[in-house]
Amino acid sequence: MVTSTQIQLARRPVGEPVDDDFLITSVDLPEPQEGQVVLRTLYLSLDPYMRGRMSEAKSYAAPVGLGEVMVGETVSEVVATRSEHYAVGDIVRAYTGWQTHAVVDQRHLRRIDPAVAPLSAHLGVLGMPGFTAYAGLLEIGRPKEGETVVVAAATGPVGSAVGQIARLKGARAVGIAGGPEKVRALTEEFGFDAAVDHRSPTFAEDLASAVPDGIDVYFENVGGPVADQVTRHLNTYARLPVCGLIANYNATSAPEGPDRLPAFMGRVLTLSLTVRGFIQTEFVPTHAEDFAREMGEWVLHEKIRYREDVVSGLENAPEAFRGLLKGRNFGKLVVQVA
Amino acid sequence: MVTSTQIQLARRPVGEPVDDDFLITSVDLPEPQEGQVVLRTLYLSLDPYMRGRMSEAKSYAAPVGLGEVMVGETVSEVVATRSEHYAVGDIVRAYTGWQTHAVVDQRHLRRIDPAVAPLSAHLGVLGMPGFTAYAGLLEIGRPKEGETVVVAAATGPVGSAVGQIARLKGARAVGIAGGPEKVRALTEEFGFDAAVDHRSPTFAEDLASAVPDGIDVYFENVGGPVADQVTRHLNTYARLPVCGLIANYNATSAPEGPDRLPAFMGRVLTLSLTVRGFIQTEFVPTHAEDFAREMGEWVLHEKIRYREDVVSGLENAPEAFRGLLKGRNFGKLVVQVA
Repeated sequence: MVTSTQIQLARRPVGEPVDDDFLITSVDLPEPQEGQVVLRTLYLSLDPYMRGRMSEAKSYAAPVGLGEVMVGETVSEVVATRSEHYAVGDIVRAYTGWQTHAVVDQRHLRRIDPAVAPLSAHLGVLGMPGFTAYAGLLEIGRPKEGETVVVAAATGPVGSAVGQIARLKGARAVGIAGGPEKVRALTEEFGFDAAVDHRSPTFAEDLASAVPDGIDVYFENVGGPVADQVTRHLNTYARLPVCGLIANYNATSAPEGPDRLPAFMGRVLTLSLTVRGFIQTEFVPTHAEDFAREMGEWVLHEKIRYREDVVSGLENAPEAFRGLLKGRNFGKLVVQVA
Repeated sequence: MVTSTQIQLARRPVGEPVDDDFLITSVDLPEPQEGQVVLRTLYLSLDPYMRGRMSEAKSYAAPVGLGEVMVGETVSEVVATRSEHYAVGDIVRAYTGWQTHAVVDQRHLRRIDPAVAPLSAHLGVLGMPGFTAYAGLLEIGRPKEGETVVVAAATGPVGSAVGQIARLKGARAVGIAGGPEKVRALTEEFGFDAAVDHRSPTFAEDLASAVPDGIDVYFENVGGPVADQVTRHLNTYARLPVCGLIANYNATSAPEGPDRLPAFMGRVLTLSLTVRGFIQTEFVPTHAEDFAREMGEWVLHEKIRYREDVVSGLENAPEAFRGLLKGRNFGKLVVQVA
């Protein structure tokens, strides 16, 4: 019998998740049935959307139940098998959450070729965040040559891919990040055309200087005061793919006024903006194949670079997750579990 | 020499336009040059967008200059001509504004066939408002059979066309209007499937009952508290063509809190909404021909009905316009000038 150390959701967080919202415990897993495998988690992905799953508010996916293991994508190794398709030692992508081991049906696995890229990259640039960037930018943002694409949280796995794909498509990429180290990496490491520090007291002016021709695509994944500044520079017919709003995720009530909605809708109207929310799963049927091929090549030939922030030990996942919501990580946040 | 009585913009209104913001005066028009005609205004269209032109805020069109005649579409009669294409007595659509006469180049006219419909209809259901409804609903809203389409200001020229076109395309139309008389007209006169009074104390509950399957298309032309209630019922993948925000037009500053923008953007994200502002001119090249043919047939065969609110006398335009921003008119507001 295999024992799994799990981090369960003990309580629904109010605002920022605290340690007592989680319970670390060990559970004995059932024996695998025909068609199932036993997995050992190698890497766990931590992503902003998980904050939504901790809450009961209506969303696109059901919340995690109290006493249930926190959800999340993993790269795992098959350690026992009753599947004809998976052998012990196979590496797979699974959705087994914040735990060390799991018993899973073979239908819920996707095999990973360890030769293509480091295993953890399958949780970032080659995984869900990379796909979010790819599908949202190309299907909704549709940058044309010479247009200006702006993205915030730009050293993160979504933002860094957005900027680099935009450049590969002939657009000008402007990244926003917090702190001089990240801002430097945007131009030096990821090849953005310009980068702006949203923590700088001159952020508004710096942004204005970085987008002399206005903004044609704003890939929205943060919301909040950063988005406020960005929307001032939008051009007529600008497109805003909205894949996340990390600035709002810990909010416990509607913020105080003034009410910015009328001004925002006024821009939507007078600039003929397209604002389109999306969850990446919508585009899996239409874009996953192209993504796997095109992004695989880009990463292999280093046309797209990525950065990871690896935290060791499952027990550190809650603290790392809190940091993620504050932008403390630098690159794709993954927990090395095994 | 022809004299034109004009209503000029004397001052930029702060909030609701007052009489002193306008100047009624008479000016002598120049003699028509080769290719020009002299027009006598029969009907002047009053439309919410005109509030935007009175203000200096950045928008999709330049503001009216102080001392200039207020802009607006008219149905006019040719009373003198130096054009080979237009004869005295011809009826045309022109953009000559709030005045009794004008000298205009023939290139800026569109001939009207008086046999098709009453002349004033060319400022409403067969004119810019009808086209706004047609292009915005079909190109952005894209209602499918059985889907629910909601529109506010629904007895107005845009709203009533939106609901009726939605029904012709197999969708369910729910209209929102102010007061029992308008609400009754929505179902009895315009054939909406359901109608809700936004002035009723039970508006929220009434709206919920009227959209049991949620809302797939919200044609946004009002904003404000009505829009707030509507967005609570949006379905995943709902589309919001945004053609106007009449509730905000007289606003002098951002309203007090709470700040509703984060909640709105949260819905955009979790429901994968498409919010798309537009100005009808964008779709003229692609949709004007279809509109003329299809809407012409619908009106001729009474598949689309319309209502007009005709005010007599140019001097009453400012007061009528104020009423328009408050929803006091019932149907397309036109001023009978001649």
